[in-house]
Amino acid sequence: MTVWPQSLSVLVSVLTRLPGIGRRSAERIALFLVQSQPELAQQLAEAIQQARRQVQPCSQCGALTEISPCVLCTDPRRDASLLCVVERATDVLSIEKSGSYQGRYHVLGGRLSPLEGVEVQDLRIAELEQRLQSEPIREVILALGTDVEGEATCHYLARRLARPGLRITRIAHGLPAGTGLEYADELTLGHALQGRREMT
Amino acid sequence: MTVWPQSLSVLVSVLTRLPGIGRRSAERIALFLVQSQPELAQQLAEAIQQARRQVQPCSQCGALTEISPCVLCTDPRRDASLLCVVERATDVLSIEKSGSYQGRYHVLGGRLSPLEGVEVQDLRIAELEQRLQSEPIREVILALGTDVEGEATCHYLARRLARPGLRITRIAHGLPAGTGLEYADELTLGHALQGRREMT
Repeated sequence: MTVWPQSLSVLVSVLTRLPGIGRRSAERIALFLVQSQPELAQQLAEAIQQARRQVQPCSQCGALTEISPCVLCTDPRRDASLLCVVERATDVLSIEKSGSYQGRYHVLGGRLSPLEGVEVQDLRIAELEQRLQSEPIREVILALGTDVEGEATCHYLARRLARPGLRITRIAHGLPAGTGLEYADELTLGHALQGRREMT
Repeated sequence: MTVWPQSLSVLVSVLTRLPGIGRRSAERIALFLVQSQPELAQQLAEAIQQARRQVQPCSQCGALTEISPCVLCTDPRRDASLLCVVERATDVLSIEKSGSYQGRYHVLGGRLSPLEGVEVQDLRIAELEQRLQSEPIREVILALGTDVEGEATCHYLARRLARPGLRITRIAHGLPAGTGLEYADELTLGHALQGRREMT
């Protein structure tokens, strides 16, 4: 006989579907919620519903936004001649956090992966080509993952998007910040050596 | 300028108030929720509200339940002559999980702690005495924490509850299961030695 109240078990099982939440954490959170101020549970439930209802992909770049087109697409201070292509909407947030980019974005929605059945028409590639027609883009920066699928997608895009007057670049692969050579794998070291730059 | 949609920021800040959820985990969960099937967010919000509304402390023993008095108090197969006193409602779930107890429970709601301002009247001690009057209890098992406040509360209860014909016991202190002597602190080893038992 279990003594866990039914609604508590339901809550635990839904919580375990969240990323990074195992059975133990789910139990701890559920018990905390039913024993805390009723306002907290209510606030959390409403915040979840609000966010799910209001946050959507931007119709133009595909980033997460409450207003479409998003502020990244409409802000006149951003450089409209630069377009950074990323796999997922969350990658936009990562790059924005770094504070080192002032252009626009385009979210592909994934990368080509024949094994997982992700084909060209599953990604926002046609939309990307359309933007190259209608916007004053002079450089496309490919900021995809550095795994095999990411690499393959980069090469496919570089060929497909090539046109006179358009630079197509890829973000640098190399050593991450704040680490020693001893922690880097051979592939990373190889990329770091190949991508070496003149010191000025 | 932040590019996190407002409702997403609100969700992240509410999530960080949950136990074990830091800023990174909260962001990961929030991003997952707004990008997953809308049904999941809805299910989670409802499960939180349901659990918070339906789960309450049992009027008799204080354990978490949807029906008061709870099944632990009303199940005739449980031994009504045994009463296990614990600090928190969640301790009941822990002991039930162990499967080694078949009596009833009484949740104190904490332990005496003059430093934190927890006095006798803040705990369910009067209710406990009342149960000793009205129920056929022959043994009270004190299953409180083994820190200073837990110890002090045990001693206070042992004196206050003492009456003819009533056994008052305390759960054993000693080595946890599956560990070696080298991992035990001196206090635990001392308790383990004092509590040694004849091997039969």
